[in-house]
Amino acid sequence: MDSKVNRRIVVAERPRYAVPTANVFQLESSPIPKPQDAEVLIRTTWLGLDPYLYGRVKHVSHQAQPVPLGDVMVGPTVGRVEVSYRSDFNEGDLVEGFWGWQDYAISDGSRIAKLDPELERPSHALGALGVSGFGAWLAVDRLAKVQRGETLTFGAACGGLGSMVGQIGKLRGARVIGVAGTAEKCRFAVEKLGFDACINRHAEHYESELREEYARNGVHCYVMAIGGRMFELAMPYFHLHARIAVCGLMASYSMQSLPDGPDRTMVLLNEINLRRLQVSGLVTLDYLGTPEQEQFRREMKAWIRERKVLPLEHVVEGLEKAPEMMQGLFEGKNFGKAVVHVAD
Amino acid sequence: MDSKVNRRIVVAERPRYAVPTANVFQLESSPIPKPQDAEVLIRTTWLGLDPYLYGRVKHVSHQAQPVPLGDVMVGPTVGRVEVSYRSDFNEGDLVEGFWGWQDYAISDGSRIAKLDPELERPSHALGALGVSGFGAWLAVDRLAKVQRGETLTFGAACGGLGSMVGQIGKLRGARVIGVAGTAEKCRFAVEKLGFDACINRHAEHYESELREEYARNGVHCYVMAIGGRMFELAMPYFHLHARIAVCGLMASYSMQSLPDGPDRTMVLLNEINLRRLQVSGLVTLDYLGTPEQEQFRREMKAWIRERKVLPLEHVVEGLEKAPEMMQGLFEGKNFGKAVVHVAD
Repeated sequence: MDSKVNRRIVVAERPRYAVPTANVFQLESSPIPKPQDAEVLIRTTWLGLDPYLYGRVKHVSHQAQPVPLGDVMVGPTVGRVEVSYRSDFNEGDLVEGFWGWQDYAISDGSRIAKLDPELERPSHALGALGVSGFGAWLAVDRLAKVQRGETLTFGAACGGLGSMVGQIGKLRGARVIGVAGTAEKCRFAVEKLGFDACINRHAEHYESELREEYARNGVHCYVMAIGGRMFELAMPYFHLHARIAVCGLMASYSMQSLPDGPDRTMVLLNEINLRRLQVSGLVTLDYLGTPEQEQFRREMKAWIRERKVLPLEHVVEGLEKAPEMMQGLFEGKNFGKAVVHVAD
Repeated sequence: MDSKVNRRIVVAERPRYAVPTANVFQLESSPIPKPQDAEVLIRTTWLGLDPYLYGRVKHVSHQAQPVPLGDVMVGPTVGRVEVSYRSDFNEGDLVEGFWGWQDYAISDGSRIAKLDPELERPSHALGALGVSGFGAWLAVDRLAKVQRGETLTFGAACGGLGSMVGQIGKLRGARVIGVAGTAEKCRFAVEKLGFDACINRHAEHYESELREEYARNGVHCYVMAIGGRMFELAMPYFHLHARIAVCGLMASYSMQSLPDGPDRTMVLLNEINLRRLQVSGLVTLDYLGTPEQEQFRREMKAWIRERKVLPLEHVVEGLEKAPEMMQGLFEGKNFGKAVVHVAD
């Protein structure tokens, strides 16, 4: 690859189709930016991909503004300081931030942090120790408040978030039921990640199998990253005072219009009322830099060191592959946290 | 009225129409029951009516079984002990319970309690100091966690629950926006109950007026007893971390089928996610006999004594009027907590 230019993947147009397609993004080249006084130049080494990022391409809410057309696509990143005109960063330092899909970035030091030197791999900063792991930890402990002996359920069981939700749930003593998109993933979730059950949502008897699992002990905790049909199936099995952590709605990100009627909003609200459910929204970025993050990091690093948590990664080679992998996330092509290796 | 018989209002059939109609209930007469050893005979003096009771007539959820056909309609009650074969109750004692719509009831003492002698009126045990007031207190303080300076909104502003929600909200220092069904109620809510605004939902410019109120300062807290369109209107104005207490869904109780599509469930879940909303269900009966109830009673009695809270009551004379008033609740005919005066 030509290291004399800065390749940048920009948002070229708003999506016209359900799933992000190649035309939404465009690869551009520009000169490598030159840092000024008190700035650093960073060489991107890793990108982290997450379904929620697709929400930054579309207009999904009053609360989240999409990335302007022509701007570099945003996302969590890891890189190495190549030039530093700051006293707090040295050349060669590994740093993490949110500078997005480009080979090089300039920073004034305000939105980057040095990478934890104890990481086994730098990419863990994007997955197990990044927003995926931290989000899972917050969802399991703080929002879903999982207790020993309770049943915890979630989708994308081998995804970046789901694989962590299930493993943390097991460490907290819960019975853990995942849903995944292939028989292979389900086998892996049970055999390697230790989940109590994992149901393949493309299997013929998916719905009845999942209902059977739920019926064993009911559902106390639901970590939502997908939503949609799986959530509907869990509804009749919620215990009184069940907790639902809403981390994402992947099933809706790829929709161009709302599902057909009737409008079942009242059904959900009625169940919240009569089952005394607690439904809370989580945006992990809110917790960056909090004491919770320190506590999470200590705990997760120990778990990885002691081989109690397997940091599952799906590595894609090359910045230019990011758009394709982003699309792949919505097709269930990743097996673990999707990360893009941009440079060594 | 003939005091030699026990008039009982039973559930005669499941509702075929949206709103409870006379044919759902039937007035029957039977001999006055005779208490056995360790039992008491109670003369009903007051009934409390609430929209949520209609949920006990229909089948609304897996979680709440309806009253069997032919059984006495359930509901909160106040009465006087006429015969006692128990050492813990004396003849003449005023008691409260849930023995339902009948002139007389037998109790073994387990589901009744002596009425607080400090009450200004026995009927307050059904309204301001009963499930309406207690539910409002729990919703405002515990679920919606209203803080000084925040904006709190709710429907049925002059109803049993709403009138209490708004008054407690004001005592907690919130800006209080109610919705009611007539201009007269709205005037009363502002002038007599001290609400900051009350919008008439039958007024021509209802939606724009309500939006304008919400736009002033956003919405931090929503106490839901009605649901439906009013909730949709509030959605774009929720602050991050807004709290929604789901106490009831009156708008849905009277529906025979779900509203037309599209299915907007995902819109709600997406807003919960991105606005970090906390949505919790409340069933006030869960908290009977808890320390919270003692705390609530102390506070509410002081507020009533000091004229800081007006316990608004809509009194109907005669047990036989209960079904008609129940229907009237859904037509907004009550102005305050609906109570039926059965006997002195």
